[in-house]
Amino acid sequence: MDQIGIGLAGLGTVGAGVYKHLIQNRAIISERVGLELAVRRIAVRSVGLVRSVHAPAEIITSHWEELVDDPAIEIVVELIGGIDAAYQLIMRALDAGKVVVTGNKALLAERGFEIFEKAAEKGIPIFFEAAVAGGIPIIKSIREGFIGNHIESIHAILNGTSNYILSKMTEESLDFPEALRQAQAEGYAEADPTLDVNGWDAAHKAIILASLAYGFWIGTNQIHVAGIETVNGLDVRFADRLGYKIKLLATIRTNRDDLVEAHVHPTLVPKQHVLASVNGVFNALMVRGDLVGDTLFYGRGAGQDPTTSSVISDLAQAAIWYDSGGKAFGFTPHGWYGECLPIEQVSSGYYLRLSVIDAPGVLAQVASILGSHQIGISSVIQPEGHEGDAVPLVLIIHDAPFDRMRTAVQGIQSLDCVKAQPMLLWVLS
Amino acid sequence: MDQIGIGLAGLGTVGAGVYKHLIQNRAIISERVGLELAVRRIAVRSVGLVRSVHAPAEIITSHWEELVDDPAIEIVVELIGGIDAAYQLIMRALDAGKVVVTGNKALLAERGFEIFEKAAEKGIPIFFEAAVAGGIPIIKSIREGFIGNHIESIHAILNGTSNYILSKMTEESLDFPEALRQAQAEGYAEADPTLDVNGWDAAHKAIILASLAYGFWIGTNQIHVAGIETVNGLDVRFADRLGYKIKLLATIRTNRDDLVEAHVHPTLVPKQHVLASVNGVFNALMVRGDLVGDTLFYGRGAGQDPTTSSVISDLAQAAIWYDSGGKAFGFTPHGWYGECLPIEQVSSGYYLRLSVIDAPGVLAQVASILGSHQIGISSVIQPEGHEGDAVPLVLIIHDAPFDRMRTAVQGIQSLDCVKAQPMLLWVLS
Repeated sequence: MDQIGIGLAGLGTVGAGVYKHLIQNRAIISERVGLELAVRRIAVRSVGLVRSVHAPAEIITSHWEELVDDPAIEIVVELIGGIDAAYQLIMRALDAGKVVVTGNKALLAERGFEIFEKAAEKGIPIFFEAAVAGGIPIIKSIREGFIGNHIESIHAILNGTSNYILSKMTEESLDFPEALRQAQAEGYAEADPTLDVNGWDAAHKAIILASLAYGFWIGTNQIHVAGIETVNGLDVRFADRLGYKIKLLATIRTNRDDLVEAHVHPTLVPKQHVLASVNGVFNALMVRGDLVGDTLFYGRGAGQDPTTSSVISDLAQAAIWYDSGGKAFGFTPHGWYGECLPIEQVSSGYYLRLSVIDAPGVLAQVASILGSHQIGISSVIQPEGHEGDAVPLVLIIHDAPFDRMRTAVQGIQSLDCVKAQPMLLWVLS
Repeated sequence: MDQIGIGLAGLGTVGAGVYKHLIQNRAIISERVGLELAVRRIAVRSVGLVRSVHAPAEIITSHWEELVDDPAIEIVVELIGGIDAAYQLIMRALDAGKVVVTGNKALLAERGFEIFEKAAEKGIPIFFEAAVAGGIPIIKSIREGFIGNHIESIHAILNGTSNYILSKMTEESLDFPEALRQAQAEGYAEADPTLDVNGWDAAHKAIILASLAYGFWIGTNQIHVAGIETVNGLDVRFADRLGYKIKLLATIRTNRDDLVEAHVHPTLVPKQHVLASVNGVFNALMVRGDLVGDTLFYGRGAGQDPTTSSVISDLAQAAIWYDSGGKAFGFTPHGWYGECLPIEQVSSGYYLRLSVIDAPGVLAQVASILGSHQIGISSVIQPEGHEGDAVPLVLIIHDAPFDRMRTAVQGIQSLDCVKAQPMLLWVLS
């Protein structure tokens, strides 16, 4: 059986999983691919480190350049993370004619345009299933399975840590800091959870999904991102009372005029919506195509084994591509270099929680400001519970453009009867 | 842009959808594939028939042989259905070096072994995404996305008609005949619904899924199949009371000793299980791999547009394969020609509904027979409601091998206190 040489950059959690399972599931992989996937060289930061997998010392190097220069390596797998070194490695590998597999979502989101331009110039594909939603084959499904579809929308839960924290807050009535502490204690959140809880991990994945669906790279300054750090236990409870669960939701969809909207933020999802029942560290994506209609994909969005599953799938496809002589580029991102709809023009329903004085006439003042901006109220609740001398007032707002809603909230905030910063969240409609 | 020539056999619902959407979504398909998919010839049974799509008369023929003989055709799409003519067409197309795309589940389930043997011999791939679960890219996901996984189990709702009927029976407390009538009136069941309601449509799909997961073709005489015709409105209600929904479930999984079990039958699914909430004409598959863990795929399992989405995906992959020079065979079914676990040895929990005389001591007699076969009872209910001079007695049974359970039921049936044929259903554990 022919061998395909693999150069593995990075032997952290995912790199170690890939090395281990290429050996452990070797028989089934060779049979199914028709080729043997042979790891010929592994680049690591510190050669001496004690690791969970034992690769022969002679294939380990601390210089990733050796992967690129080795003629026995046909596929380079970038699993070192970070931006600069990973970018150098991938660009050099493409220049050297190597097929590239990567799980680096931040890198693709920030420099995908340059990387894919280089790949197209060299006629070499890049595979990146592990960059989005762990083991769920969502890249392959959108790029290949739905190739005949105009993608109308993607609504997705893409960050397992945030979803775990929000699930904890919902199920155990915890506030954010306590739920985060528990997630860290149970290994579902990093010591530094910044990128998870501030929404940017999900935003990087959303940018990659949008590039597949719409053929252009949304700039990191074009996607509206908010994290779950500001979500209050109160909001989780009030949302529940109104028939919603709060999820960190990524939305990517085409609008009239073929503009694309992309935003990631805590969102009230109606309880009967299938995404509302996705709990814990799981990821889920609802993809709507003009032919296929609504589809749902669900699975583990992170972890060594699921991510390894995706990297091995990419390695198989890369190996088959290489073995075919690398003639057909295959499944190219299409050529529509589109535009984003500015977030100000995106319409949605909203959840607005105010802290107001406990006196008659307050709702009238709030409703009057909303009315003057042509914004309609769908429902109002005044839950029990004083906060000092203020009480909560919660409104669900009909669809309105985001800029108009923000302006109205500024007006409401300046009312004398409003005692604290209003809490504004999106509602999935 | 290079063109790839397509010969389309069949211009029924799916064939017409494929022709229409290859034209309607042409721009996006060409951009993404990097090739133009050009339908060069269409074979139909009656040339003169008035159709929903208008193809140029000069490309329509009533002889499918013309597709096979035309050197300008690189891909043959078989959408004529049935077994014999479709088999001839596919074998002749492979002999002529054409790549084959088909949505013919019955054909693959019955003669897949011969067809794939021929394909391997000729080094030409066959694509069949449309054969299972409509627009859901489940073939691609298992074959390619999970290529690094040992598939541990697949539990799937694969027949939209049955699921629609069972949903109606559950939601509107209908009996089977009335629910079937409504499904027919609403266009969700054929005038002849035999293959849908007797379980065989789902069984064909299960055989195809098993071939991907385990690399061998289960014979149609090796898969245990029961349909929903025998499910009584009573059973739907009693299952509900016990915390279950009844679904036509396909189960494919490996057992100890690497034997594969495959069976399709009405099954009680716990309400909290994600498959319990799949309603109406939707399909869903829960796939568990040793690396990826549990994943779920959900979408429309039939209909012109979703099925067209899958055929176009296959056409794209076939075109890229052809364009690459057809060197790499790619994603071969692996070589483990395995064995089935006989249904008699498969273990499961069960639901047993008896019609018994309304007298003390009946449960003791039933329990005694079960106990003598080492079969444990998990719960018992005696719902209200006389049937003549008999009353229902419903038991949920702990896991036991199917043959032992059947023998016990025969014993129970011969008791004097048992007044009618017992109803035995499987329970998903």
